[in-house]
Amino acid sequence: MTIKIGILGYGNLGRGVECAILHNPDMELCGVFTRRDPESISLLTPGVEVHPVEEAISMKDAVDVLILCGGSAHDLPEQTPQFARYFNVVDSFDTHAKIQEHFEKVDASAKEGNKTAIISVGWDPGMFSLNRLYAGAILPGGHDYTFWGKGVSQGHSDAIRKIEGVKDARQYTIPVKESLEAVRSGKNPELTTRQKHTRECYVVLKEGADQEKIREEIVTMPNYFADYDTEVHFISEEELLRDHKGIPHGGSVIRTGTTGWKDENGHVVEYSLKLDSNPEFTASVLIAYARAAYRLNKEGVSGCKTVFDIAPSYLSILDGEQLRRQLL
Amino acid sequence: MTIKIGILGYGNLGRGVECAILHNPDMELCGVFTRRDPESISLLTPGVEVHPVEEAISMKDAVDVLILCGGSAHDLPEQTPQFARYFNVVDSFDTHAKIQEHFEKVDASAKEGNKTAIISVGWDPGMFSLNRLYAGAILPGGHDYTFWGKGVSQGHSDAIRKIEGVKDARQYTIPVKESLEAVRSGKNPELTTRQKHTRECYVVLKEGADQEKIREEIVTMPNYFADYDTEVHFISEEELLRDHKGIPHGGSVIRTGTTGWKDENGHVVEYSLKLDSNPEFTASVLIAYARAAYRLNKEGVSGCKTVFDIAPSYLSILDGEQLRRQLL
Repeated sequence: MTIKIGILGYGNLGRGVECAILHNPDMELCGVFTRRDPESISLLTPGVEVHPVEEAISMKDAVDVLILCGGSAHDLPEQTPQFARYFNVVDSFDTHAKIQEHFEKVDASAKEGNKTAIISVGWDPGMFSLNRLYAGAILPGGHDYTFWGKGVSQGHSDAIRKIEGVKDARQYTIPVKESLEAVRSGKNPELTTRQKHTRECYVVLKEGADQEKIREEIVTMPNYFADYDTEVHFISEEELLRDHKGIPHGGSVIRTGTTGWKDENGHVVEYSLKLDSNPEFTASVLIAYARAAYRLNKEGVSGCKTVFDIAPSYLSILDGEQLRRQLL
Repeated sequence: MTIKIGILGYGNLGRGVECAILHNPDMELCGVFTRRDPESISLLTPGVEVHPVEEAISMKDAVDVLILCGGSAHDLPEQTPQFARYFNVVDSFDTHAKIQEHFEKVDASAKEGNKTAIISVGWDPGMFSLNRLYAGAILPGGHDYTFWGKGVSQGHSDAIRKIEGVKDARQYTIPVKESLEAVRSGKNPELTTRQKHTRECYVVLKEGADQEKIREEIVTMPNYFADYDTEVHFISEEELLRDHKGIPHGGSVIRTGTTGWKDENGHVVEYSLKLDSNPEFTASVLIAYARAAYRLNKEGVSGCKTVFDIAPSYLSILDGEQLRRQLL
């Protein structure tokens, strides 16, 4: 008996989920739902159909877990509460400031339908959050640091693309090495935004665009670049497609803290990721939590959960005794 | 209402637990139990009494969680099943090959008493195991690597101390830098024991001992040193006490794996610890899981658990909404 997975939204993340299913022998893709014309989409998995999103609810009994692969800005705030009434769902809602509000809506909806929803799954929020919790529980009174990158920020790349005269762009977030080392050494530095990350931009101009004007517009852009040291490189479209087509990311969560009667001993806990593909790794986390959603619902658990609420064993294909024998 | 903690066994680990309680405002030390003469022990915490271990069971209603701080070789295999019938307990049983057997005995006993037991808590087994599980669930088909150190191995130090002519010794386990880098780069090297770690020994001789004979005896010792490149340094007792009095440890759990339809993208997940005091960090993990044992038992959960079975939120002093708002 495999776990039947539905995917809602077939962009980079949806395709990542499709690939992740291939790596998990207890899972099976049973359908993809889209707002686009289903005819325009061709899946990697043979024999699986693409359906218009309007048909999803009528197929609810065929799907064990529906993975919502839309965006956090516009799609998930609507979709997760909507579908959590009919399906066990997992999403990657990542607007940190709105997670609690999202949680409450999804919780009410999932409870109405006796379904299990797990929100904000991925690596940040997700695995990074988990590591903040674990390290914080072990070292109370310590200091938390999160560094992102080197990796492509989709939001910052989009912000550059919206500038007049820009044809395409890719933005990398890069942690400042000296700051990272200072944190790892246990020095507990206080770091400004500028001291933590730099931003590197690769920009393709439209014909006749004013290079210096665009550079200025990027480096002074409030919220996105003004508070950072930003490097701008103008390159050809060919170079962009050749050298910057991947979507790598990663980063580190570090907690430093002390123990002992007089805080005489210091400790550094670090969790770090180096990812060739941000959406595929995120999708792999989603799939592991889909297994948990399925199992929890079978046990009669309903409502909204986050990574904090899920015992790790629910993520693994191994049973309790196998886990104790092989991994403990 | 604080959680009342009892400590059984007042060595380095027990003292570490006592210090960890100080860092957790929801906890209180309510008693220490010992097999030694209680008069011979003076606690750091004012106003707390030391009792002979025989009195423990008569005090069961005063203790919310009993933390068992004995050794895995002789103490815990007896003590944890014995006390899990009367107390919620947490132990750091670390003989990997015997965990399942220990689990079964403790489970039967805890269920009889409607108590919650959590075994094999610490960093390895413990936090390292958790990271093996999480990364394994996300990247099925990948490769796991565990490196230990730089840190003091108590077992290896003891093995040297048993050699005739040795007065005292300290052994450091050190990961081989090149191997660690090869793993981090995603090369998936196959590594022999010798390629993963080296061993560095600081030895104080008794008067008249034969230095070369002892060096030979160390480096050829089966299981402990024969399979490693081992450096032996002979130093004075004064130097040993001055330069090697700490009990640092640490290490890294690394998983590498691929995603994508054709495994075209590689990922590296690393969890690493750098600890000034191995027993105090282990004790800090024990205390976080004591909070979980207390809460689970209040919810009516009984039997034996491991870190795999405990939802992370049970470890934190924060409630669900605080966790979502502050850490997710």
